[in-house]
Amino acid sequence: MSGSTRVNERTRARVLAVLDEVNYTPHAVARAMKVGRTDSVGVFMSRITSPFHAALLDAIGRRLAAEGLQMILWNLEHDPHELAQRVIRQRLVDGFLFTSATFTSRSDKAAVAAGVPAVLLHRGVTGLDCDQVVGDNYRGAWDVGRYVLEAGHTKIGLVSAPLEVSTAAEREYGFRTALRKGGHPAREPDIVRGAFTHSAAHGAIRELLARPVPPTAVFAITDLLAHGVVDGARSVGARVPDDVWVCGFDNVEMSSWEAYDLTTVNQPIEELVDTGVKLLKRRMADRDARPRTVRIPCELVVRGSTANTALPEPVTPPRRPRNLGTMKR
Amino acid sequence: MSGSTRVNERTRARVLAVLDEVNYTPHAVARAMKVGRTDSVGVFMSRITSPFHAALLDAIGRRLAAEGLQMILWNLEHDPHELAQRVIRQRLVDGFLFTSATFTSRSDKAAVAAGVPAVLLHRGVTGLDCDQVVGDNYRGAWDVGRYVLEAGHTKIGLVSAPLEVSTAAEREYGFRTALRKGGHPAREPDIVRGAFTHSAAHGAIRELLARPVPPTAVFAITDLLAHGVVDGARSVGARVPDDVWVCGFDNVEMSSWEAYDLTTVNQPIEELVDTGVKLLKRRMADRDARPRTVRIPCELVVRGSTANTALPEPVTPPRRPRNLGTMKR
Repeated sequence: MSGSTRVNERTRARVLAVLDEVNYTPHAVARAMKVGRTDSVGVFMSRITSPFHAALLDAIGRRLAAEGLQMILWNLEHDPHELAQRVIRQRLVDGFLFTSATFTSRSDKAAVAAGVPAVLLHRGVTGLDCDQVVGDNYRGAWDVGRYVLEAGHTKIGLVSAPLEVSTAAEREYGFRTALRKGGHPAREPDIVRGAFTHSAAHGAIRELLARPVPPTAVFAITDLLAHGVVDGARSVGARVPDDVWVCGFDNVEMSSWEAYDLTTVNQPIEELVDTGVKLLKRRMADRDARPRTVRIPCELVVRGSTANTALPEPVTPPRRPRNLGTMKR
Repeated sequence: MSGSTRVNERTRARVLAVLDEVNYTPHAVARAMKVGRTDSVGVFMSRITSPFHAALLDAIGRRLAAEGLQMILWNLEHDPHELAQRVIRQRLVDGFLFTSATFTSRSDKAAVAAGVPAVLLHRGVTGLDCDQVVGDNYRGAWDVGRYVLEAGHTKIGLVSAPLEVSTAAEREYGFRTALRKGGHPAREPDIVRGAFTHSAAHGAIRELLARPVPPTAVFAITDLLAHGVVDGARSVGARVPDDVWVCGFDNVEMSSWEAYDLTTVNQPIEELVDTGVKLLKRRMADRDARPRTVRIPCELVVRGSTANTALPEPVTPPRRPRNLGTMKR
């Protein structure tokens, strides 16, 4: 029952069949005391209602279940640091997945400092000595920048979010690098940064469209923000893509629906989660393994919000900055 | 540390302060062995990526955290019955919340049979002897039926889902009762039942709109289905509300966005969750308490998908059927 390999396979099967007949299941708590592990993984997440995070959570749950692991979910929006500190010290789980770490968050650093197996998934923290699996945000956003420039746009808006979040920092940096290399650097008035919410983006696009020279193309750094941009444009009678192009990042399911028909950058959730769980299992088996950072390629998906305009030939972007999170801004 | 009330408050505070200084946290597993409880609640859910379920999960997590309880999440889409059986026997949690029980599902019945504290939240099971908290689906859907009739529609479509789910059965029954009482009973060809997905509803509305006499109003029994109906109508060039009115049920956040601007029935998630957690805590404290079924009122919210047409005066519907889940169909 402890999964020992010293037991003959047929014997194991027969024992398990008998136990199943008598409705026996090892009392999980007693078993955890005995074998020194809980077969549970803790997931720290915030903003579960955001469609990307809901899809990520769904994929994590499916993957952990396939591994025979339970998922304990904590939402870091509620009393984040105190909660994380307590949870980490309680040893209720064998390892952690962090999906919403920021450059300034302390809970992920506390887990690393405590020597608990932990993997950062989706959002990374530059310089933190632990396993990290992230989308290639810099490259994906660079592709968006080049795409709108090649299509002839020169007045380009950016709807972004707090730069202590790696996805925001990398996407903003990649996009702005492409614009600068293309000879149309983004000026501060064309950038609006706010919360990761539909309503923040809704306000941002109305602000941009009210400018003397409004942008003809807007990159919102997440799909949820892009949905807010499309709806905000609708609310003032601006047509997408006729009056303004809109691009997002994530490729959540609803971005393919007629309501948005959004050009965006695909984050391969299954691959992110698959890699993250593999790294966590490796770490749980060998705490001294050398930490790895894996970057998953993300591809531009062209749809109606940019008039289905074809993608230019791919170009290799300049080298990504190594320490975005710790850079002075 | 066990929360005993026999300890002087000042003494407790001093002990806790010292423990905090030395970074001590009771080992959760050892503590669970000792005090006989885990301070964890198990949530069985499916379809986390559906916006209503994501919002429900978010509210459950917030409410449990406020009570000092951990949430362990299992997704019943993956190997449902075997998983639930095992989890229930393992006693890893003090109680369960089921959010996606059906009339035919066995995991909720197994929990009740095992005498484990369990509450059905959002979806109920008629005749199951346990605490249940549900929205008033019958009444809400009856209101939708009356609303479209009073506005003069006589050719009315229904996009529904498998009737082994209480929300589907009650909403369909409430809606059809209103149509029948209003002299325009729904005919089978005007009803399309499919999966709880955007794409199923997308196909359903295209089917309905292709009929010789297409409906001028459609009720989709969830908001997600209504989004599929609106997008499916768009895909064939039908305008909402000019060509066809669309109503949903749930009032998820995105239904208020310009993309859908959906008339729908509000399910008060906070109240559902608040009541569900209260009943679960009562049950954990007293396993012999008499099971209760609480029905939370749900109100129609009028928006652009029905041309913002005012709501008629409320009317009391005929009495709801007592045994919808066990009725012959």
